[in-house]
Amino acid sequence: MSLWSVFFSEVLGTAILIVLGTGVVANVVLPKSGGFEGGTLMINFGWGLGVFGGVYAAYKSGAHLNPAVTIGLWASGAKTYATGVSITPGSTLVYFAGEFLGAFLGAVAMWAAYKKQFDDRLDAPSLGIFSTGPAIKSYAWNLVTEIIATFVLIFYVLVSGMTNKISSASGSTTFSDAPAGALGVALIVVAIGVSLGGPTGYAINPARDLGPRIAHFVLPIPNKDSSNWSYAWVPIVGPIIGCLLAALVARAYM
Amino acid sequence: MSLWSVFFSEVLGTAILIVLGTGVVANVVLPKSGGFEGGTLMINFGWGLGVFGGVYAAYKSGAHLNPAVTIGLWASGAKTYATGVSITPGSTLVYFAGEFLGAFLGAVAMWAAYKKQFDDRLDAPSLGIFSTGPAIKSYAWNLVTEIIATFVLIFYVLVSGMTNKISSASGSTTFSDAPAGALGVALIVVAIGVSLGGPTGYAINPARDLGPRIAHFVLPIPNKDSSNWSYAWVPIVGPIIGCLLAALVARAYM
Amino acid sequence: MSLWSVFFSEVLGTAILIVLGTGVVANVVLPKSGGFEGGTLMINFGWGLGVFGGVYAAYKSGAHLNPAVTIGLWASGAKTYATGVSITPGSTLVYFAGEFLGAFLGAVAMWAAYKKQFDDRLDAPSLGIFSTGPAIKSYAWNLVTEIIATFVLIFYVLVSGMTNKISSASGSTTFSDAPAGALGVALIVVAIGVSLGGPTGYAINPARDLGPRIAHFVLPIPNKDSSNWSYAWVPIVGPIIGCLLAALVARAYM
Amino acid sequence: MSLWSVFFSEVLGTAILIVLGTGVVANVVLPKSGGFEGGTLMINFGWGLGVFGGVYAAYKSGAHLNPAVTIGLWASGAKTYATGVSITPGSTLVYFAGEFLGAFLGAVAMWAAYKKQFDDRLDAPSLGIFSTGPAIKSYAWNLVTEIIATFVLIFYVLVSGMTNKISSASGSTTFSDAPAGALGVALIVVAIGVSLGGPTGYAINPARDLGPRIAHFVLPIPNKDSSNWSYAWVPIVGPIIGCLLAALVARAYM
Repeated sequence: MSLWSVFFSEVLGTAILIVLGTGVVANVVLPKSGGFEGGTLMINFGWGLGVFGGVYAAYKSGAHLNPAVTIGLWASGAKTYATGVSITPGSTLVYFAGEFLGAFLGAVAMWAAYKKQFDDRLDAPSLGIFSTGPAIKSYAWNLVTEIIATFVLIFYVLVSGMTNKISSASGSTTFSDAPAGALGVALIVVAIGVSLGGPTGYAINPARDLGPRIAHFVLPIPNKDSSNWSYAWVPIVGPIIGCLLAALVARAYM
Repeated sequence: MSLWSVFFSEVLGTAILIVLGTGVVANVVLPKSGGFEGGTLMINFGWGLGVFGGVYAAYKSGAHLNPAVTIGLWASGAKTYATGVSITPGSTLVYFAGEFLGAFLGAVAMWAAYKKQFDDRLDAPSLGIFSTGPAIKSYAWNLVTEIIATFVLIFYVLVSGMTNKISSASGSTTFSDAPAGALGVALIVVAIGVSLGGPTGYAINPARDLGPRIAHFVLPIPNKDSSNWSYAWVPIVGPIIGCLLAALVARAYM
Repeated sequence: MSLWSVFFSEVLGTAILIVLGTGVVANVVLPKSGGFEGGTLMINFGWGLGVFGGVYAAYKSGAHLNPAVTIGLWASGAKTYATGVSITPGSTLVYFAGEFLGAFLGAVAMWAAYKKQFDDRLDAPSLGIFSTGPAIKSYAWNLVTEIIATFVLIFYVLVSGMTNKISSASGSTTFSDAPAGALGVALIVVAIGVSLGGPTGYAINPARDLGPRIAHFVLPIPNKDSSNWSYAWVPIVGPIIGCLLAALVARAYM
Repeated sequence: MSLWSVFFSEVLGTAILIVLGTGVVANVVLPKSGGFEGGTLMINFGWGLGVFGGVYAAYKSGAHLNPAVTIGLWASGAKTYATGVSITPGSTLVYFAGEFLGAFLGAVAMWAAYKKQFDDRLDAPSLGIFSTGPAIKSYAWNLVTEIIATFVLIFYVLVSGMTNKISSASGSTTFSDAPAGALGVALIVVAIGVSLGGPTGYAINPARDLGPRIAHFVLPIPNKDSSNWSYAWVPIVGPIIGCLLAALVARAYM
């Protein structure tokens, strides 16, 4: 498969993940939205099912949607990023580019869908709809939370990738493992959200946080609050450490 | 398959979708119903699982249940609407007729199931149980929201249809892809509802909105509020634009 | 398979369905339970997943768990009740006996699990934990609601039974269709609960209502409210009419 | 497979189960967490999906994650604990050791993820995040509740193990039964939680309760409440009795 196909697939899939994921936060947080005060569980289902939709859309490129998945696959010793996509510095950069651009575009689409609600939100903050932030700020402990949460995600992705290979060898292809275990990874994201999302809002994905943060920074939102750039490195560094640890354990284990 | 079978299948499936979908709103909104104030998440699960039930019921005709699916399939270059149903102006009209009639009948059945609750609802409004409406009225931005939400739905339907073909080629038929990926499309509808449903109530289906609106208009509901015909074109035009865009992207992508 | 096996299987499966189904109501309704005020959505997931557990437990007998399923299969022209169980007056009665006895025993087990909460509930009512009742009493319209809700359930069971046969013919047996589409029927029960459960509490199953009502009548519950026998015929007659209609439509359709 | 692999697999799987399961309680209970007051249904989804993640992680050892599963398999007359792991006193102890150590480590990881929230929780209690406790204390009736709830879990595990063997014999391996029916057991745990979790908090697993209780005892938590050792035997003895009953019934039934 051409790297252009990979790029387009990752842009599309990550955009769908992010329009749905940030959309559910907008729905719950913006006072004049129909889902206002819909609750934490609804937010977590929105993100999990956003992953479900994104994975389907990006089936051609193996649906990474997340630099931590790309790095985790590389570090785990996988032979390819997807069927027909070998692991090289170039392909790695293409995945990264697609993931970050898709996340940015998804956040812009979410903003368009909720344009009137953003404009009429009075003094309600807006950054929390786009990007993550800590409930209690502490760089060290916020990093710990992101590392643990990302470990759970990437370890699942690596293990389920291996068990999918077992499935494929037996000749069976089902809804759930084609494309790429969409339902399973959706459920694990719901799990991480409800269980480990409390302290930092579970970025567990550098693109999920940075792309929408840039969108927040550039979009014409009235009464815009700060884009909080001083925290922006935590949801990048934490997931990278977490995915490397998951790859290490997976190599020892599998 | 005869077009009468297609018609009957679409009527039945769309009626089940709508009796369940509008039913959950009735349950949450009508003051003397057991599920009063059950919350937004429950409403969204009701619609998603309504799709699940409707898709099963309409398995013979490929379970479009939605003119935007019919148009999207046509525009995507699909060869058939369902196994044994070729794409012609006639078959297209049969799908449309079944979808709109089924949606109307499903809304009537919902009203019958909640008859006593409608009669005892005092001054509570009733249109919102049948049809969608904007949280903040703005034809342009309401259209944008419906276009984005429908894009996500139809792009999923087109992609998952293609991946189902891969499944079928491998000889495996499972619960999830027979009939026609009921679980997957149910999940994507929940996703769209929680994430993009806030501004307009996510019609994403012209029949889902117009059929019940006509039912609302003709049914003997005490203290009936307006059927709001001035908004009725938005949940028709928005989904049509959205499904055409999805078909365009799918043709370029797949 | 022997009719004793059928009987034991239906007792076990229906008991697990009912201990979970009535249990979630106890959890939400009893003031000193951990899940007090857990909400309508939780109740509906409890019933749906109770069906999931019950279907697995009763896999030997095809997991009817509900006289409306037994009657619906008979009326639909099915050739057997389960693999190796022919349809006769005797086998029909064995299913009924297992279903009602299992429902009674499940309610007793639920009461044992919540014994301390029942004893300490002060003046809170208790019948609503065991059996269904109307939000607004009206024999005619309560019947209509039960008929519509049961139609949706049994039509699904009949259609999915047929599509399962397609699956089986292709040689694939998966989690979802073995035993007997547990996940699918669980989801349709959640759908019916959230969408059509408001007016009457969705019995959709004569055994589910009568067995626990008898348990309520005989168990030593302090300050016990009436077992409301005058309503008891509605959740028996409504589901029977609903399942016969579903069988009629299924015969015409499939 | 070596017993070291079994041990490592069970440690990893149980740790992931417990970090997610106790994590969701922390998220809902700790006042400065993002999911504060997220509700009972969210807690139950967190535990169920924690099982989903844990089962995947421990696929090598058959994912017991629970001494009641290990004992239940032994008592049911199973021939192996997992593919290539025979049932001996030694292997049984290895499962137990992995389960209890994993549960302890998972609770420590949860505490690390929520470190700042624990430190800033003022006078809120903390034991309920780690371990179970009765809503109304009564050793006898608390035992009854744990016995019934564990019966439902282990009976499901034994039945679904058997139906999975039918699947495997037909040559099909799917997402859901590889590894070991992760989705099904997750759903049954959600069912038990919403339906039978009210009186005691549903340990249904001696390791799930004792491991985190020890972690609570040793961790440096400010204003720590008692670890309530007088209750600690109930969530050990109840699940053991419940799994033995389930094994007895399963032997008679299957």
